[in-house]
Amino acid sequence: MQFTSEQLLDDGVVERAFTLGEIPGTLWKPGSAPAPLVLMAHNNGLPKADPRLVARARYTAARGYAVATIDAAGCGGRSRSAADEQARADLRRAMRAGEPVDEIFESLIGPLVDNAVPEWQTTLDALLQLPGIGGPVGYSGGWTALGIRLAVVEPRIAAAGFFAGGYVPRAQREEARQVTIPLLFLLQWDDEGNPRQRALDLFDAFGSEEKTLHANLGGHTGTPWFELEDGCRFLDRHLK
Amino acid sequence: MQFTSEQLLDDGVVERAFTLGEIPGTLWKPGSAPAPLVLMAHNNGLPKADPRLVARARYTAARGYAVATIDAAGCGGRSRSAADEQARADLRRAMRAGEPVDEIFESLIGPLVDNAVPEWQTTLDALLQLPGIGGPVGYSGGWTALGIRLAVVEPRIAAAGFFAGGYVPRAQREEARQVTIPLLFLLQWDDEGNPRQRALDLFDAFGSEEKTLHANLGGHTGTPWFELEDGCRFLDRHLK
Repeated sequence: MQFTSEQLLDDGVVERAFTLGEIPGTLWKPGSAPAPLVLMAHNNGLPKADPRLVARARYTAARGYAVATIDAAGCGGRSRSAADEQARADLRRAMRAGEPVDEIFESLIGPLVDNAVPEWQTTLDALLQLPGIGGPVGYSGGWTALGIRLAVVEPRIAAAGFFAGGYVPRAQREEARQVTIPLLFLLQWDDEGNPRQRALDLFDAFGSEEKTLHANLGGHTGTPWFELEDGCRFLDRHLK
Repeated sequence: MQFTSEQLLDDGVVERAFTLGEIPGTLWKPGSAPAPLVLMAHNNGLPKADPRLVARARYTAARGYAVATIDAAGCGGRSRSAADEQARADLRRAMRAGEPVDEIFESLIGPLVDNAVPEWQTTLDALLQLPGIGGPVGYSGGWTALGIRLAVVEPRIAAAGFFAGGYVPRAQREEARQVTIPLLFLLQWDDEGNPRQRALDLFDAFGSEEKTLHANLGGHTGTPWFELEDGCRFLDRHLK
């Protein structure tokens, strides 16, 4: 892991860009005190520099967490496979034509999750070697499908906050019942692109004994600010 | 309003029993500093002295609120009408026989709400005359049907926390769309006696622009402790 830049933010958080082989990432950390690690993955179509992700990461770091994000293979600024480009073109065309998009999402997101998981695990290995970063590890992200897979294969992840706002492939909908860690599941009640019933079914499917759903009125990007605070308190209960 | 007892609790909260005409009530208040008022109504079948209500009231008072509850007409220790006794007997018989109970609940809870509302309003009038108690007023209660009606008829109520755990008469399900104050709606995902879909439909029906659903795994009495904390933070956002 090589750090390529470092910046002290005005809330006392240090923001550092890193590369790990081909993987570019960012780490936010509050000073030098030991902090539990939170992996924060974004909707796969958006880069790790997306302002909403950065704002969530900085807020969470200021609350006492080491927060890391990466652009995994095919995500953010990383190069895309020909199949990936084709699926994205198909998706745009189908959306313009008002055609069903589930199968296209399936062919796009399924492989993205498969390819992202090992890179997130490699990153996790490297981050836990750094001084002042300890377990247990949390996951807090807009990319629920990735979070489900990570929660299933990665025993170091002890709690997860998911946002029910993107397509979850069939494989991860099946895997949901294997997720047993405490969950906070965020739902926007009127999310344009995400059927409410599908999100409620996913919440129902998780195998966790402690799972909480927070639903708020409004569309995809309308999550109220207080959910950020609630999300940190959820992490506090399980990681601190 | 006549105070009939006063007790200083170990968290600095003063608990006072009162009567207001025929209405018996309890008021919890943190010291002498001014505090916003929270009306806390219980599931109508249970008395104001129910330990879970008292625990919620004390916790909320310790967080800086004046909290009041009453046994309204027909509730708790108050005498019941013959029709009320009959409905309760019918309910027990139908439940033993495994028969549908919606119509019996309708005949029981509908009139209870109608009779309770003016008594809660009379109590509200009297409480707001007391020194150190100010508006805006919150409602936090297990009795959602009463809360809906109060939120519709009582402009002094500025925010409400409801628990989706009891029968809500047709009249209040209709009135839900007239509720426009900020809401926090608590749902137990596996509540034995309360169909989940009916609770989700009720959440959907509320006319409020700010409404949040918190759903947790488990049965009727399994609400996790952190929801008490979340409920106070919801009140903090709107009453302080």
